[in-house]
Amino acid sequence: MPELRKDPITGRWVIISTERGKRPSSFTSVSKRTAAGMCPFCPGHEENTPPEILAYRESGTEPNQPGWSLRVMPNKYPALKIEGSLDRQPVGIYDKMNGIGAHEVIIETPDHACDMVDMSDEQVRDVFWAYRERMLDLQRDRRFAYILVFKNHGEAAGASLEHAHSQLIATPIVPKRVAEEIAGAKRYWDFKERCIFCDIVRQELTDGSRVVADHDAFLTIQPFAPRFPFETWLLPKTHQSSYLEMSDTEVMVLARAIKATLARLKAALNDPPFNYMLHTQPVSRESMDHYHWHFEIIPKLTRVAGFEWGSGFHINPTPPEESAAYLRDIDLEQWSHRQDSKPAGKEA
Amino acid sequence: MPELRKDPITGRWVIISTERGKRPSSFTSVSKRTAAGMCPFCPGHEENTPPEILAYRESGTEPNQPGWSLRVMPNKYPALKIEGSLDRQPVGIYDKMNGIGAHEVIIETPDHACDMVDMSDEQVRDVFWAYRERMLDLQRDRRFAYILVFKNHGEAAGASLEHAHSQLIATPIVPKRVAEEIAGAKRYWDFKERCIFCDIVRQELTDGSRVVADHDAFLTIQPFAPRFPFETWLLPKTHQSSYLEMSDTEVMVLARAIKATLARLKAALNDPPFNYMLHTQPVSRESMDHYHWHFEIIPKLTRVAGFEWGSGFHINPTPPEESAAYLRDIDLEQWSHRQDSKPAGKEA
Repeated sequence: MPELRKDPITGRWVIISTERGKRPSSFTSVSKRTAAGMCPFCPGHEENTPPEILAYRESGTEPNQPGWSLRVMPNKYPALKIEGSLDRQPVGIYDKMNGIGAHEVIIETPDHACDMVDMSDEQVRDVFWAYRERMLDLQRDRRFAYILVFKNHGEAAGASLEHAHSQLIATPIVPKRVAEEIAGAKRYWDFKERCIFCDIVRQELTDGSRVVADHDAFLTIQPFAPRFPFETWLLPKTHQSSYLEMSDTEVMVLARAIKATLARLKAALNDPPFNYMLHTQPVSRESMDHYHWHFEIIPKLTRVAGFEWGSGFHINPTPPEESAAYLRDIDLEQWSHRQDSKPAGKEA
Repeated sequence: MPELRKDPITGRWVIISTERGKRPSSFTSVSKRTAAGMCPFCPGHEENTPPEILAYRESGTEPNQPGWSLRVMPNKYPALKIEGSLDRQPVGIYDKMNGIGAHEVIIETPDHACDMVDMSDEQVRDVFWAYRERMLDLQRDRRFAYILVFKNHGEAAGASLEHAHSQLIATPIVPKRVAEEIAGAKRYWDFKERCIFCDIVRQELTDGSRVVADHDAFLTIQPFAPRFPFETWLLPKTHQSSYLEMSDTEVMVLARAIKATLARLKAALNDPPFNYMLHTQPVSRESMDHYHWHFEIIPKLTRVAGFEWGSGFHINPTPPEESAAYLRDIDLEQWSHRQDSKPAGKEA
């Protein structure tokens, strides 16, 4: 059973995998790339993954068989385990609890060679729809305080398999970063009686220098104080505290907006490794006037070194006004043409 | 002038280098390794660095000439600049100030091929002594709230030059990570009327499973809730809130303790890239009963991915009890012999 341990000084929780403890020698091995023929996420290899929890598939096809366009299953090497109780307990002056949670993988496409930028709008919409379906299901489990959806693209960003996928981890505690955002947004609300994110949307639309693209219901910006070069946020323009508040139509608009944003980053930075994270309000709460869901996209371009780890400050060599201008200037039309002239992805 | 910008939601400050904005193309270039003959940190190349602030050198030798055993100078590419005033100001709903601070480099040895593990105890002591001298000098500047000493070893840990060096950044604000530690330690003090770090020392000495080595006045442990595999802390065993409280004798003991700790990590993990950071109390304050200075050493063995960036949680695949046992079992005698049989470093 993995353990959740609490740093007694800062209160930060850490997940310790007690079962598959990595020996020192195992850190030196180079990670392997998986060829399409060997990929456990490709159609025909369904037996290499745990049984599916959710799939969008052609009618008449069987679960855990080919015929799917999107597939969700438990992570084969979960960071947290679904069975058991939290069992909070002291260890001398310390605190720990069982590593209870859900860790799922969303395979975004049957096509091994396809990333989100290459997919059809409908396929991308299905990915964002699947996030929602899984969140709605998991939030019925009262042990979970938060569901974090994220994506690692590229080896340097932590992706161990290149086949396009996202992940979801449900945790028994609200993660520190989200808790900090909520606390900060609450302070602003108490002072101004306005949502800080709504104010950011307003300020960025007026100023314009950090806007990457305006997608109708969503806005893509480079934040005023980005930790990383080309850090990009995508927010709903009108107030929504939870990802689950989106209308069906908005999910399609979101899909197009994210796809266009990732296309700009791909074109500007030559398919950079990146992470994106969905920040939404904790589960099982009333809608929050002071919190506002959003995506944070961070290309992996620089190294995090001693100063950052020691201070929590980040040194960013690229002003967001410059990177936003650069991304705005990308000609997505030309990009679409380039995409169109590529061989079509094989549809399962 | 670099800018300090504040994230309006979490209050996190970021240093934006507005002058040397990196263009997208510049992120794809591979970093260059510098051969010994070309290294700006080697004796004879003093003209390739800014003029020295401090040096330990043979009597009769001139500043900025060979003859030194340790040399401190401003970073040629500083993250923060020493001249000017903070000039805090609003930018719409946002906050910024000038990027005022000091950014210095401590060249630890004239020998290009030497790292801290290879150096003589006296040479390592001089490094820790130099930190102290620079901190004492810089804390007289009332603009600075904190002085962070850190070291990046190896390219993957952010070292751009391989010649052994540490860095120091003086900042006009207490860094977030340190502020969090101080706040957490204060909460504990308010509740228990004891220093949390002193309690950790006590608990670890009693328990023993996470102790790497007991060095008289200092203790090397793997913390109970480490963010990273083989994360290692080194603390004074009796209460000291500031690094500057150490006696002259203790500096020598510290040098031997750090050297032995780094030797264990080098032996266990085959010279891993690592960062170390010195956490001490903010400058110009009374001694704090609730804070306790320490070093944090983090080998760079795993990738930080979307879950970590999105949650602030870390997933650590190695229980600290296992890594501590592994490090304890390293035969340092054998290592010393191996070191001794190496060709001696050239002394300038």
